[in-house]
Amino acid sequence: MDTRSLFALGELLGNRLQTSLETRTCYSIDATRKKFLPDAVAFPANADEVRRIVLLANEHRFPVVPRGAGTGFSGGSLPVHGGVVLSTERMDRILAIDAENLYAVVEPGVVTETLKEEVRKVGLFYPPDPASLKFSTLGGNIAECAGGMCAVKYGVTRDYVLALEAVLGTGELVRTGVVTMKGVAGYDLTRMLVGSEGTLGIITKATLKLVPLPESATTLLALFPGNRHSAAAVNAIVAARVTPSAMELMDRTAIDCVQATIPVELPEGTRSALLLEVDGPASSTAREADLLAEACRSSGALEVRRASDEKGRDELWKLRRSISPALRRVGAVKMNEDVVVPRSRLADMFDFLADLAARKRVTIVNFGHAGDGNVHVNIMISGADKDEYRRAEEAVEEVFRATVGMGGTITGEHGVGIVKSPYLEMEVGPMGISVMKRLKSCFDPNGILNPGKIFPEEEAAPA
Amino acid sequence: MDTRSLFALGELLGNRLQTSLETRTCYSIDATRKKFLPDAVAFPANADEVRRIVLLANEHRFPVVPRGAGTGFSGGSLPVHGGVVLSTERMDRILAIDAENLYAVVEPGVVTETLKEEVRKVGLFYPPDPASLKFSTLGGNIAECAGGMCAVKYGVTRDYVLALEAVLGTGELVRTGVVTMKGVAGYDLTRMLVGSEGTLGIITKATLKLVPLPESATTLLALFPGNRHSAAAVNAIVAARVTPSAMELMDRTAIDCVQATIPVELPEGTRSALLLEVDGPASSTAREADLLAEACRSSGALEVRRASDEKGRDELWKLRRSISPALRRVGAVKMNEDVVVPRSRLADMFDFLADLAARKRVTIVNFGHAGDGNVHVNIMISGADKDEYRRAEEAVEEVFRATVGMGGTITGEHGVGIVKSPYLEMEVGPMGISVMKRLKSCFDPNGILNPGKIFPEEEAAPA
Repeated sequence: MDTRSLFALGELLGNRLQTSLETRTCYSIDATRKKFLPDAVAFPANADEVRRIVLLANEHRFPVVPRGAGTGFSGGSLPVHGGVVLSTERMDRILAIDAENLYAVVEPGVVTETLKEEVRKVGLFYPPDPASLKFSTLGGNIAECAGGMCAVKYGVTRDYVLALEAVLGTGELVRTGVVTMKGVAGYDLTRMLVGSEGTLGIITKATLKLVPLPESATTLLALFPGNRHSAAAVNAIVAARVTPSAMELMDRTAIDCVQATIPVELPEGTRSALLLEVDGPASSTAREADLLAEACRSSGALEVRRASDEKGRDELWKLRRSISPALRRVGAVKMNEDVVVPRSRLADMFDFLADLAARKRVTIVNFGHAGDGNVHVNIMISGADKDEYRRAEEAVEEVFRATVGMGGTITGEHGVGIVKSPYLEMEVGPMGISVMKRLKSCFDPNGILNPGKIFPEEEAAPA
Repeated sequence: MDTRSLFALGELLGNRLQTSLETRTCYSIDATRKKFLPDAVAFPANADEVRRIVLLANEHRFPVVPRGAGTGFSGGSLPVHGGVVLSTERMDRILAIDAENLYAVVEPGVVTETLKEEVRKVGLFYPPDPASLKFSTLGGNIAECAGGMCAVKYGVTRDYVLALEAVLGTGELVRTGVVTMKGVAGYDLTRMLVGSEGTLGIITKATLKLVPLPESATTLLALFPGNRHSAAAVNAIVAARVTPSAMELMDRTAIDCVQATIPVELPEGTRSALLLEVDGPASSTAREADLLAEACRSSGALEVRRASDEKGRDELWKLRRSISPALRRVGAVKMNEDVVVPRSRLADMFDFLADLAARKRVTIVNFGHAGDGNVHVNIMISGADKDEYRRAEEAVEEVFRATVGMGGTITGEHGVGIVKSPYLEMEVGPMGISVMKRLKSCFDPNGILNPGKIFPEEEAAPA
């Protein structure tokens, strides 16, 4: 960025523009651990300032990279071509919680858990639950279409976005959608913006759907001798027509990883585990939990534990919740992929991953949201060994090919960003890329917003 | 259309192109009773034929107007600028019902009820239930984003579309989305196509999400002295954190209309009625029905009837189901609007409509999906009286203004088509129209697909 651009931005924002190396460094990383230094960091206070930043960017042609809390795993908030990181952290007000019409209106910088807690106070529930919810912001969740554990029953972020206010790449401030469940007046610009990773518009306000808070929940932990058994249990649960609110599968690799660091008492021979939860009226959760337990036992569970009180449920969640902290001790670098396969292919996917780890001589730790087929594949490497790094990269590509081959998707909830952009065409084809690029140019003709994301970058022509 | 175009289409389609006046007349109308004669009607057998028709249309510049069963209320399938009506009725196969992964793959011409019945046989449920479901096709439902009565609990068509195959206005055959619940690889082209009213692409295949069939249902009919009482009951139900699978409100106008033609026994002084339904596990529906009955009684219900067996439930539905047949006897022309207001404004909306009917001296019959705030406003006119027609048109515009003023939408489930295009800007603003037009040009640069819909047509310049 040239001095003139920085000067114009400074005029607009005053001390809400930061250019010190210290601040820029803080905003140069995200959960991918990759690093790209921005030229400046802007902290707009309202939608009009966002709009004026984007107009300036169009005039001076510098990149604007919107950022929530920087917890993303695909590099969505990294300024890969420099420019201004636009942090939404000063736009962090909950503007309304309408308990009669069941929606909330928020600014983008509200932390996900803050909204969940506030609506809980009036007996309501905002379901999306990305693992980062204590830090991540709603604006970031919407931009990436964040998922989580309860998606199998409640859906993902896109299912809760009723209306948006956003500044497009052109600088236009648009309002999309309606506050009601139904609404078909013109094209669905709301869902066009959801999951567009900050490349089409910057969200400045969102109206989110709320649902009644379930009155009770029961948790089960079922321990199996292998993945084929737990996958059979998942299918038996689906066949019993019960929809759990969580259905988490832990592979042997994940269990071993936890046991090596933060051990949990498990029956001899546990090689796979299912963490299940049902919620709703107390009368139906008890009965549904019975059906789940039966499905697990008839699929060969070694043991099924069960709890309905908060303390007991916390205890059962321990194994699942310990995976991430345990993983940090296995390798310095974690390549964290979030592929999704049709649920019936889960066991095949886990078999493939075991074989792949052996062939590529890398540690792969697998767990996932079995209810929706979403597998978190964590390739753990030291980071120092170049050959290991190459083998890990090859493994990632093989995972994506296998996923697409099984009719799945290369990203269920993290987004494409820079991490998956080389593989996007594998899934959507050259025509899909071409249509998406045309869409991009109609929202952001000058390529101001979050350049270098989603689409594979063309190699620079040799001079 | 010129002879060369018709000849080229005939070469491609053989007897799957019809140009007789009789066939063209059959395909010149829809549920709006407006009439526009196409130049020809095409009955493609597969996606490749659809693609080749659109390529020819781009070459010869004739309009292609996709059509399901022609049950739409907004004129979406009318060839207002002539050209070819493309009927999907020969693409009517259910290609797969995957009971393990809970989805179905269908061609666009499958009748909605056919799919509902087929999946019911394996214990599954495809929830969207537009009133036309015995005739309307899934392709048409997707193009219009059809709603229905169970939207309050289950959502609308868009919530069930996982993946699409479609021919864009450019002639490109694209595949969008994935068969899994989660998937964020690139922009959400699937939801861009849903509700786009055949103006961006022609759907040639759809993957639809299925859910477990609820094991039981209980129906209640609550009769009230006025709309303020039934609206209070709706709010009490929401406050009780129960989500019924149907919550239908009938205004005095609708009740009188039924009583005048197909009378149902009602308590003296009934001026408003709520038809409620809860579904799910038998244990919870019984308890939820108790809560609903209590909410109705404490809001002043004159009587609450209840049934859980099929015969008894059918009996309770009679009042609601008789509205449409009864309406046909009131006036020759029905202007059927489908506005939505936030649920808390329902009583205000009904008051406004009563006042409007008196001021404009027209009969307005109102009923609706109270759970989601969707009100069907039926302005009944003889059709012969020009002044009455003018007053009715003025009333329609007032209804839309009031709706937008209450924070609602001018169309909840019928779409914009030609009927609401003059009013779209009232809701989305000039900037919304401008963004949507840019989107249109990127999917259909030559304006081949369904011209004259959604966007207000510019007046022809005087010669």
